[in-house]
Amino acid sequence: MMGICLDEVRRQGTLVHNITNYVTVNDVANMLLACGGSPIMSDEAEDVEDITSICNGLNINIGTLNSRTIEAMFLAGKKAKGLGHAVLLDPVGAGASTLRTETALKLMKEISFDVIRGNISEIKTLAHGSGSTKGVDADVADAVTEENLDEAVAFVKAFAAKTGCIAAVTGAIDLVSDGSDCYVIRNGRPEMGRITGTGCQLSGMMTAFAAANRELKLEAAAAAVCAMGLAGEIGWKHMREGEGNATYRNRIIDALYNMDGKMLEKGAKYEVR
Amino acid sequence: MMGICLDEVRRQGTLVHNITNYVTVNDVANMLLACGGSPIMSDEAEDVEDITSICNGLNINIGTLNSRTIEAMFLAGKKAKGLGHAVLLDPVGAGASTLRTETALKLMKEISFDVIRGNISEIKTLAHGSGSTKGVDADVADAVTEENLDEAVAFVKAFAAKTGCIAAVTGAIDLVSDGSDCYVIRNGRPEMGRITGTGCQLSGMMTAFAAANRELKLEAAAAAVCAMGLAGEIGWKHMREGEGNATYRNRIIDALYNMDGKMLEKGAKYEVR
Amino acid sequence: MMGICLDEVRRQGTLVHNITNYVTVNDVANMLLACGGSPIMSDEAEDVEDITSICNGLNINIGTLNSRTIEAMFLAGKKAKGLGHAVLLDPVGAGASTLRTETALKLMKEISFDVIRGNISEIKTLAHGSGSTKGVDADVADAVTEENLDEAVAFVKAFAAKTGCIAAVTGAIDLVSDGSDCYVIRNGRPEMGRITGTGCQLSGMMTAFAAANRELKLEAAAAAVCAMGLAGEIGWKHMREGEGNATYRNRIIDALYNMDGKMLEKGAKYEVR
Repeated sequence: MMGICLDEVRRQGTLVHNITNYVTVNDVANMLLACGGSPIMSDEAEDVEDITSICNGLNINIGTLNSRTIEAMFLAGKKAKGLGHAVLLDPVGAGASTLRTETALKLMKEISFDVIRGNISEIKTLAHGSGSTKGVDADVADAVTEENLDEAVAFVKAFAAKTGCIAAVTGAIDLVSDGSDCYVIRNGRPEMGRITGTGCQLSGMMTAFAAANRELKLEAAAAAVCAMGLAGEIGWKHMREGEGNATYRNRIIDALYNMDGKMLEKGAKYEVR
Repeated sequence: MMGICLDEVRRQGTLVHNITNYVTVNDVANMLLACGGSPIMSDEAEDVEDITSICNGLNINIGTLNSRTIEAMFLAGKKAKGLGHAVLLDPVGAGASTLRTETALKLMKEISFDVIRGNISEIKTLAHGSGSTKGVDADVADAVTEENLDEAVAFVKAFAAKTGCIAAVTGAIDLVSDGSDCYVIRNGRPEMGRITGTGCQLSGMMTAFAAANRELKLEAAAAAVCAMGLAGEIGWKHMREGEGNATYRNRIIDALYNMDGKMLEKGAKYEVR
Repeated sequence: MMGICLDEVRRQGTLVHNITNYVTVNDVANMLLACGGSPIMSDEAEDVEDITSICNGLNINIGTLNSRTIEAMFLAGKKAKGLGHAVLLDPVGAGASTLRTETALKLMKEISFDVIRGNISEIKTLAHGSGSTKGVDADVADAVTEENLDEAVAFVKAFAAKTGCIAAVTGAIDLVSDGSDCYVIRNGRPEMGRITGTGCQLSGMMTAFAAANRELKLEAAAAAVCAMGLAGEIGWKHMREGEGNATYRNRIIDALYNMDGKMLEKGAKYEVR
C-alpha cells in the first residue's frame, strides 16, 4: 500500500502550495521534486488564493511566521479546504513562543486540517493549549522511546481523535495515527537530527502524498514518514569519508529521487498498533 | 562570441543586484559567483536605490513577490534604468495568479527591460495580457518542440519586437530573440527540470552576461542560456550511482565554476533563425 | 584553549537565535548544527522576545534587512542583552547603502554587542560613521595584507577598544581583537570567497562559540574564525575533479561536522599581537 502512495505522487505530479519558512524552503522544493511532486511557494495575502486554487495540496509551516504571512495562511487554508484539497499544518516552534502557539491553535480552530505533523513537544503544546519547547527541536525529556511507547501511542491516538486529523509525531520513533490505528515507524537514522529541515521536507512530501491519495489518508501519511526515514538510511550508505551533515542533506533528497514504490514497500519498517 | 561574453563577466566581476524569491536565492548567488560575477540581494524600498546604484545589473524575479517587495521592484528598476544598467525580468508564475500577471505587466509598462526570461506559459501570458499556467512550470501543451518550433520562433520574435526586449523562452528547446534573429538552443538535459531554481539561476547569470556585454545584447543572453545548458550536460557526466536532483543542483553550479570561454564556444549547441 | 571553545559548544548544544538574511540562512543553520549548536530563526517583532529568551545567543545579520525585521532586531537585541546572552552583529553591506549604515550604527548605539564581525570595508564604515563598499564584499584596496598588517591591527584594536566589543575583521588575513590583544589568523583558502555566505556562517558559529564560552570572549571569537578557516582547508582537500563552489560549500560545513577540539588546536594558524 505504501508503494502505491509514492507511485501515485509520481504518476499525478502532485502540485503543492507551500507557505513555509525561508530557512529550509529550498530543500522542501527539491524534496517535492524528488518524490515526483511539484512545488510552488506564495505567502502574500493577495496571491495565495489564486495560487492554491491551481494546486492539489497546501503545506502550512509556521517556522518563520510573520504578521503578513499569518494572514496568508488563513486565506490559503480556507480556500484550499473549500476546494477539497489536502491541507497540512507543521506547527514549527509551537510552545517556544506565544505567537507560534496561538497562531497554530487559531489555525486549527478555523481550518480543518487533514494532517498535522510536528515533534512531540509541538504536538503536546497543541494538545494542551500551551507548552514549552527547546527551540524547534523536541524536549529531550519528551522524546518517544521504547520505554514510553504505549503512553505515546495513546497520546497520539487521542490527539488525532480529538482533532479529526491524521496526527504525525516524528522523532527517533515516529507515530502516525487517525485516532483508531497508529503506525509505529522505525525508519531513519539519528544523524538526520543534525540536518536542518528534515521535518520541513517531510511535511512538504507528506502533503503531496496526502493530496495524491485522498482515499488512503492514514496510509499516505505513514508512507511519507517511512519514505523519509528510508531515504535517510539509503543516503547514509552513500556517505564517504570526510562527509557530514551538509552532504548528507543532499544524499537524503537524492535517495528519494531514486526511490520507487517497490523499494519503499521493501524498506518500510513499521507496525500498526 | 559566446566565449567572450563569459570571459567578460569573469574579467569585470560584474555585480548584480537581485530582487528574487527566497526559494532559490542561495543558488542564484552561488551561480553568479560561479560565472565570475558577484551577487547582492536587497528588496526593501528604502534600500534598493542605493544598492542598485553600486551594481552593474538588476535581476527582478517575482517568484515570491509581496506588497513590500513589489514596491522595491519598481523603485530599483527605475533607478537602474536611469543609470543605464542592464535590467532583467523573470516573471515567475505569470498566468498563475492575477497578482503575478498584473505585477509583471505593470513592471513591463513602467520599466524598459533589457531582457525578459521565462518559460513559454509565462511569456505567452505577458504577450496576451492574461493566461493560465500549471504553477511555476510550463504547461505541457505549451512546450516548445521540434514540431511547433517554427510557430514558437515566430512568437518569440514577435514578442521581442513588440516589447523591445531580448526575449528568452527556456525549456527543452530554448529560444532567444531580439525581434530580428532567434537563437534556437539545444543544450541542457531533461533532468534539470527536476531541480528547483535552474530558471532563477539562469536569470541571475543572464543579468551578469547582459551587464558585462552591453554591445552584444542578443549574443550575451544566448551565451548565458548555452552556458547553463552546457553546465547541465557537464554536471550530469559527474553524477555517480545513488545521486539525484539535490547533488545534481550542485554539480551544475560546479560545472559553471570550472567553465571558461573556450569550453563554452566548443559546447554551445545552437542555430540562428 | 581554542579546542575547549569548540568542545563547549558541542557539550552544551548552544541554542542560537538568528535574525539573518534569507540568502544564506540555510547554510547558517547547517553550520550551527555542524559545530554542535542548534539554530532557531525568528524575525517578527511579536515573536523575537519569546524566542530569544529560550536561547543562549543572538546573531543579528542585516544582509536582507527590511522595516519589519529592523524592528525585530532592536527588540531581540535588547531582550537578549537584558538576559545576559551573547549578542553578535554582522553589518552586511554597511557602507553600501544609507539604510544599512544607519541601521548598523543605531544598533551599536542601543545594544552593547559582545562581538561585531564584518569585512574591513564594513568595519571601517562603522568606525568612521560612513563609508563606501563594493557591495557585500570588501573593497580590494581595503584588504588586509602582509604589507598593511600593522596598520590594520592598530585599526581593529582601536575599534574594539572604542566600542567595547570583540571586533572580528575577516578576509584573506583575519583579525580578532578585544582592544588589547589582536589575533592575526591565517587559516582559510582564497576559494572561500567564491562561495556565498561563508561570512554569515561564521557569524552564526561565532555567536555559539561566544555564548558557550562567556569567560573566554576573545579566545572564543578567534577560535570560531580558526575553525571556519580550517574547515575551508580540510574541505578543499576533499574536492574532486569537476567540483566547484557549490560542492565546496557543503564540504566546508562537512569539515566542521567532523572537527573536534584537538583537530582545531592542531590546525589553528595564528599569532597574537
